[in-house]
Amino acid sequence: MSKVHNFSAGPCILPQEVLKQASEAVINFNNLNLSLLEISHRSKDFIEVMENARNLVRELLNVPDNYEVLFLQGGASLGFLTAAYNFMKIDGSAAYLNTGTWANKALKEAKLLGGVLEVASSKDKNYNYIPKNYQIPGNADYLHITTNNTIFGTQLKKTPISRIPIIADMSSDIFSKKINVSDYDLIYAGAQKNMGPAGTTLYIVKKSALGKTGRTIPSMLDLEVHISKDSMFNTPPVYPIYVSMLTLQWLKNNGGVEWIEGINQQKADLLYNEIDNNPLFKGTAEVDSRSNMNATFVLTNDDLKDEFDSMWQAANISGIKGHRDVGGYRASMYNALPLESVQALVDVMKELAKKHS
Amino acid sequence: MSKVHNFSAGPCILPQEVLKQASEAVINFNNLNLSLLEISHRSKDFIEVMENARNLVRELLNVPDNYEVLFLQGGASLGFLTAAYNFMKIDGSAAYLNTGTWANKALKEAKLLGGVLEVASSKDKNYNYIPKNYQIPGNADYLHITTNNTIFGTQLKKTPISRIPIIADMSSDIFSKKINVSDYDLIYAGAQKNMGPAGTTLYIVKKSALGKTGRTIPSMLDLEVHISKDSMFNTPPVYPIYVSMLTLQWLKNNGGVEWIEGINQQKADLLYNEIDNNPLFKGTAEVDSRSNMNATFVLTNDDLKDEFDSMWQAANISGIKGHRDVGGYRASMYNALPLESVQALVDVMKELAKKHS
Repeated sequence: MSKVHNFSAGPCILPQEVLKQASEAVINFNNLNLSLLEISHRSKDFIEVMENARNLVRELLNVPDNYEVLFLQGGASLGFLTAAYNFMKIDGSAAYLNTGTWANKALKEAKLLGGVLEVASSKDKNYNYIPKNYQIPGNADYLHITTNNTIFGTQLKKTPISRIPIIADMSSDIFSKKINVSDYDLIYAGAQKNMGPAGTTLYIVKKSALGKTGRTIPSMLDLEVHISKDSMFNTPPVYPIYVSMLTLQWLKNNGGVEWIEGINQQKADLLYNEIDNNPLFKGTAEVDSRSNMNATFVLTNDDLKDEFDSMWQAANISGIKGHRDVGGYRASMYNALPLESVQALVDVMKELAKKHS
Repeated sequence: MSKVHNFSAGPCILPQEVLKQASEAVINFNNLNLSLLEISHRSKDFIEVMENARNLVRELLNVPDNYEVLFLQGGASLGFLTAAYNFMKIDGSAAYLNTGTWANKALKEAKLLGGVLEVASSKDKNYNYIPKNYQIPGNADYLHITTNNTIFGTQLKKTPISRIPIIADMSSDIFSKKINVSDYDLIYAGAQKNMGPAGTTLYIVKKSALGKTGRTIPSMLDLEVHISKDSMFNTPPVYPIYVSMLTLQWLKNNGGVEWIEGINQQKADLLYNEIDNNPLFKGTAEVDSRSNMNATFVLTNDDLKDEFDSMWQAANISGIKGHRDVGGYRASMYNALPLESVQALVDVMKELAKKHS
């Protein structure tokens, strides 16, 4: 069978060689004659996986020594709460940039713990742009941003200039491009886009910023607890962490974040160029806010929907149906999606235009 | 290679046929020509996995219709907090039976939300028995129990008689024997013993008992939120849930909980019989509190330690080193461990005795 062009928005495509190794480990891991799924998380073999995964994050993102790297559970959705618990002081407040559904959810959880100011919102245009020129209150405990918005196809191109600490949910664009970790006090990200399968969540946190809220934090939400136990306070999600480690190793072996950033730019350029030049398609996000991870677009003539849908399905393309909040199409081009898959989609778009020119 | 006799305390042995299917799904799931790790959790193929898993729990445990079944994240450790949030009223209190390390951790998290009464404790004898004849306060919001204590090798043989709702952490003995779900308002259990790999946590909850605390509950800790989204409020841990589904299907195909309860009893009888009759060994838990899942025992003569350790290692036995809080040995005999593995251990114990008779 020829491989599917998998544009799924997440969980999403992973490198073929990672899947092969991941499959083998379920039968016989490290030649132990045991499955990875049935060994103790305290065994030296798994501790090595955890440490490799944490070290690969450090290496790939140039994480400074005063930051800690953790692999926890709960997705970004638990991260929304964890972020607020660890950074919002008792009687404190926080500033949130509202760029869509996930930013809203983060803001909602923070409200349970204190005052939340929405510094700017792009809700007026169904979140199709990243707000600019907003004021960040100097007395808030932190500014929270969502660096990439999967549903609306927008992405922050620059880290905001802020005098207060920045917390970033990078679930859908971490490891897709270079970042400067020291711009942030906390970065968190669900694994299931560029890092691995669903089931683990990465935290990168500045140690000296913790322990200052005056709160008693529940153990599982307390980043200092997890740091003190080397990311093994409780049984970690063994398999998702292992597959994340393999994926990060794949990224490193191929040239790291700098390498993938170039390829991701090529993929985005190829698709957005077609969207802009093909009269049958139109992008939904404002040009300077476009995401390199998720390109959202619609047909200029809805009557062509059935025809276009049949054509891309026939080309073995999968997962480009748009989110219901935007409609149309969404092509997610995460790290493991090859340029050829984008070319396959562009070819179908060109073919449609040719038929109707 | 001959198969290892895997007595690991958890994550632990899983059925061989489950591992085979689990390995294949990483390469090609449901003949989609896609890995299970790279498809959307909203795809019909994964929704079917989630629904199968939930229905298998219902079937295997005869879950009444007024209960809901959820597969979430965070392990029992997040369950400690979730239990208290959903069941302890504002200005309320809760009663906890202290049978060891995990019971203590549960109690600690509940204290963040209100008054906690320890109804009884076996700390005086290093938790080597299950307390009896204690008073349960009629005005507490619930009684919390830990049905099996992996570290100390003890297990509750009967559900306490209680006028207040019972919440049970069944992480290490769920699906090992018949239970009466309606005895409990909430059952929760990390998957990584009898149910599957690490990374998902089962909740079985009486719907009508929820929503009565007067609290605003963070979304990810609110069981009503998860129920309203059919256990998919956020991206679920896809692979751990899939492997749990396969393991529950294996249990059903072989005869269900009644079948495995008989086998588990045979395994426990075989090992405890040897511990009691072999002069070189001594059990650490009181006889009427002994766990059928984890048998803890020590050598009567410590000088034989190196010899015994070499012998069981040579017999391809793995994972019987005791927990540091008890010392000696711990043989975990979860559902997937075959009787032959227990026989292999007993044979080594007999051989040691023969040499020193």
